[in-house]
Amino acid sequence: MNSDRSEKIWIYDTTLRDGAQREGLSLSIEDKLRIAKQLDKLGVPFIEGGWPGANPKDVQFFWQLQEEPLQQAEVTAFCSTRRPGILAAQDPMLQPILAAGTRWVTIFGKSWDLHVIEGLKTTLAENLAMIADTIAYLISQGRQVIYDAEHWFDGYKRNPEYALKTLETAIASGAQWIVLCDTNGGTLPHEVSQIVAEVRQAFPNSDLKLGIHTHNDSDLAVANALAAVIAGVKMVQGTMNGYGERCGNANLCSVIPNLQLKLGYSCITDTQLTELTQTSRFVSEVVNLAPDDHAPFVGRSAFAHKGGIHVSAVERNPLTYEHLEPELIGNQRRIVISDQAGLSNILVKARTFGINLDKKDPACRQILDKLKELEHEGYQFEAAEASFELLMREALGKRQELFELKGWSVHCDMLAGTTMQYKNSLATVKVAVKGQDILAAAEGNGPVSALDAALREALINFYPAISHFHLTDYKVRILDSGVGTSAKTRVLVESSNSYERWTTVGVSGNILEASYLAVVEAIEYGLLMHSCSINPDCMENLYPKGVTTSLDQSGVKR
Amino acid sequence: MNSDRSEKIWIYDTTLRDGAQREGLSLSIEDKLRIAKQLDKLGVPFIEGGWPGANPKDVQFFWQLQEEPLQQAEVTAFCSTRRPGILAAQDPMLQPILAAGTRWVTIFGKSWDLHVIEGLKTTLAENLAMIADTIAYLISQGRQVIYDAEHWFDGYKRNPEYALKTLETAIASGAQWIVLCDTNGGTLPHEVSQIVAEVRQAFPNSDLKLGIHTHNDSDLAVANALAAVIAGVKMVQGTMNGYGERCGNANLCSVIPNLQLKLGYSCITDTQLTELTQTSRFVSEVVNLAPDDHAPFVGRSAFAHKGGIHVSAVERNPLTYEHLEPELIGNQRRIVISDQAGLSNILVKARTFGINLDKKDPACRQILDKLKELEHEGYQFEAAEASFELLMREALGKRQELFELKGWSVHCDMLAGTTMQYKNSLATVKVAVKGQDILAAAEGNGPVSALDAALREALINFYPAISHFHLTDYKVRILDSGVGTSAKTRVLVESSNSYERWTTVGVSGNILEASYLAVVEAIEYGLLMHSCSINPDCMENLYPKGVTTSLDQSGVKR
Repeated sequence: MNSDRSEKIWIYDTTLRDGAQREGLSLSIEDKLRIAKQLDKLGVPFIEGGWPGANPKDVQFFWQLQEEPLQQAEVTAFCSTRRPGILAAQDPMLQPILAAGTRWVTIFGKSWDLHVIEGLKTTLAENLAMIADTIAYLISQGRQVIYDAEHWFDGYKRNPEYALKTLETAIASGAQWIVLCDTNGGTLPHEVSQIVAEVRQAFPNSDLKLGIHTHNDSDLAVANALAAVIAGVKMVQGTMNGYGERCGNANLCSVIPNLQLKLGYSCITDTQLTELTQTSRFVSEVVNLAPDDHAPFVGRSAFAHKGGIHVSAVERNPLTYEHLEPELIGNQRRIVISDQAGLSNILVKARTFGINLDKKDPACRQILDKLKELEHEGYQFEAAEASFELLMREALGKRQELFELKGWSVHCDMLAGTTMQYKNSLATVKVAVKGQDILAAAEGNGPVSALDAALREALINFYPAISHFHLTDYKVRILDSGVGTSAKTRVLVESSNSYERWTTVGVSGNILEASYLAVVEAIEYGLLMHSCSINPDCMENLYPKGVTTSLDQSGVKR
Repeated sequence: MNSDRSEKIWIYDTTLRDGAQREGLSLSIEDKLRIAKQLDKLGVPFIEGGWPGANPKDVQFFWQLQEEPLQQAEVTAFCSTRRPGILAAQDPMLQPILAAGTRWVTIFGKSWDLHVIEGLKTTLAENLAMIADTIAYLISQGRQVIYDAEHWFDGYKRNPEYALKTLETAIASGAQWIVLCDTNGGTLPHEVSQIVAEVRQAFPNSDLKLGIHTHNDSDLAVANALAAVIAGVKMVQGTMNGYGERCGNANLCSVIPNLQLKLGYSCITDTQLTELTQTSRFVSEVVNLAPDDHAPFVGRSAFAHKGGIHVSAVERNPLTYEHLEPELIGNQRRIVISDQAGLSNILVKARTFGINLDKKDPACRQILDKLKELEHEGYQFEAAEASFELLMREALGKRQELFELKGWSVHCDMLAGTTMQYKNSLATVKVAVKGQDILAAAEGNGPVSALDAALREALINFYPAISHFHLTDYKVRILDSGVGTSAKTRVLVESSNSYERWTTVGVSGNILEASYLAVVEAIEYGLLMHSCSINPDCMENLYPKGVTTSLDQSGVKR
């Protein structure tokens, strides 16, 4: 066993490419950008962005990234080796890869002779030429290359000589990293250890930088990644929450804390590590999949304790009942009866919004109580930071009610025919603004857009800034799914004013009510942002007592 | 590494005890009996039934089992060592254990000195006496004892001498099995290997039978169980679907196929192994948790394939793209329908629905065209196989329109106040059934449940089977999210009739219309399934020309 610890292990996230292969998961360009930014913040050094050219969405994603580049992460473009019987420079497939404008490109090639002959329908020699030519061409174009050896372990077990020849070719052609892939996910940890050791022995004099890419078909993706690192690999590829085709990829939310906290390697900073739980939940919200409460490290139940004596023992000496401290990964201990944790989370969270809270401030306890009450109702603020900020401001007396909700009604009529008709929905809303009751109605080609339009109609004369922002995404999740269409619904609404994006949340047994609540907060937060753009100090202290801002005249209370 | 394969590994299932510790899972006596019988059928030799005395339910479960014993499995009663400072024979806790009437009893005791002193608040010597006395007493009462060494790995790492003394005591007192428990789930596979080897070395002359009990807090429960077996352990404790406290226990649905199919050990018969997938899903039904589609080996997506060329390669030589044959564990290969679908996908897919298509059949091309048109509109059939089957049947002239949609209308009124009121939504639907126009109305606490109720109201007299199925999940995704609330909406509806689950899809710019379309197909498909349960040939050829089935009289065309 290699005990060369404290050494850097390079994390390579492929949520945006391999993760998106998960059945039922589909990402918009906006989703991809949001996830990439969060991974960048987490400190992931490599992010595989997609296969530009395979679909128009990935092309556009890389263009967008050129306009708004990440802080530190390298985003790689992913592609196969060139086609057989054509020069790399002439293969049109590689042009969008170069156009993506990344410093790093990840090229996957065949390691398994059978796949060369049956899959590519070419010769073993031509496959080697494809590897060499593709890597050399990309390097000649100023790129650095990561080589993914597809089906490595299966190929090596059947024909080790040929498999090693493919690696030798990739190394000789200038690939910086060689990544051993367990594409079918069938390899066991002791086999990974042994084969990685054999690969290292096969290239004793080279400055070989190896990576590992594992799949979870045998429930061993994380174990295989760890086995490879212990055997000397320096890069681990995986995805957030283990998303991926079939049974998923190695879950980075488990790989990173195991490597860093258990094995003493270094992946990201300790501070970044405390963002792991939040990142996991953020990604699950963006992709609109329920977070797994029982996920190792980052799940809501991962540090949950039940029962009396046990609980006080946990309180006295947590490490006798926990394999590590949940705070290290931004998770929290949860005592199923009474939850004492959370206060410090609130403090940390408040700071991210530029609000400095004192632990002894009663507002702190108030926020926590309100938060728990709302979470019990089904609210979730992981991806709805705008709603959370409004909640905090309310507890601090810094939320100004810009309008009071009096009610709404919606009517949809499709009785005339079975195809949808334009403007089939009519919404009426009633709000009180600055002491005045306003009733407004609007049409829409669906009930939520009609509601949104009616609310804007009611408010536009009082708050003309509303015209500058609009809704950009809308996500719905059914909470207690066992009861079907009568279940509680959580709606996330994302809005934008062309400079900023913000997300709000609403929960109700009625999907339209949930949508309406989220839309209402979206507009309120948009107005708050607008007021901040006029008065930059407002994030710190939006409505300090005695100071009148342009929005501070209504005196309306909720 | 021990390569002593083909040897029997004893599977010990603790779904009914440790599995039931999972937050949100609760089992009735009836549930426990159903699961025990299914595990017995699967060939699991040991089933931990519960802790009789800890709650009345477990007492009754064991009584019930005495009346209707299992075929082959040993059901064990679970209990801790006796209390400090009292004789085992006088500890009332042990009396219900004996009354449970099992041949085997599992006793857990402390291995970690810290837990003895801080948790039990007794001396290290008394803990040894508790282990010895409890085991000896149970043996004197005719029981065979499995000894679970709680917190084994953590205890051994801190104080190996004392930890080994607890095992020595248990062995000397007559325990048949010694089970090493990673109670906090923090141990890594290489540590498990090493510590198991050290335990074996510590008792070189004894006929030591070791077991392993792992938790998934580090995402390594399965890997740790395998590492222990490779190091010489002969019993694996775990749960179905990995249920258990916090992040769960070792998932037997992964442990068994890995041991048997990958490592060549023998756990259950090959025929029993083909019941694994069904057992996993049965257990999830009984405990009322959605099965994990992405679960290794037994998940619905575990052998799912996407994409054209890839699919024909899988058909030709599955083992180049699959780590094992899904049939071995009773699962099946599944071709995912997506926008990359080619003709060969359609053919394979049709076969799984019992429809034999000819590549040259114009219907084939027609299905593909329709599929692409619908996918362009935003439909997605990856997760909506029921809708896809209806689509295929339509193209083949094998879809019978059971009712014709004439329209619908919904009214929600929240004008009275800002809080949601019960039954705030009223829906009206108009359908034509068997030549008759039916207008029906229903209320709901949301617009979708009102629509669902109104549709059922309209159809129930014609199709009473509707009462047997219900909606179990409802998912919403906004497609072109750039346009916010006016975006197109895709709704997935999952339904169940207690035997089968099916998913349908609807797309529209109006979320209620999309929901309605998905609900309509859910009901149509449910009726199709119902008709198949009466006439098993129908999957092959539901509505062959000239044959009249019980549902074949309406003549309604869409």
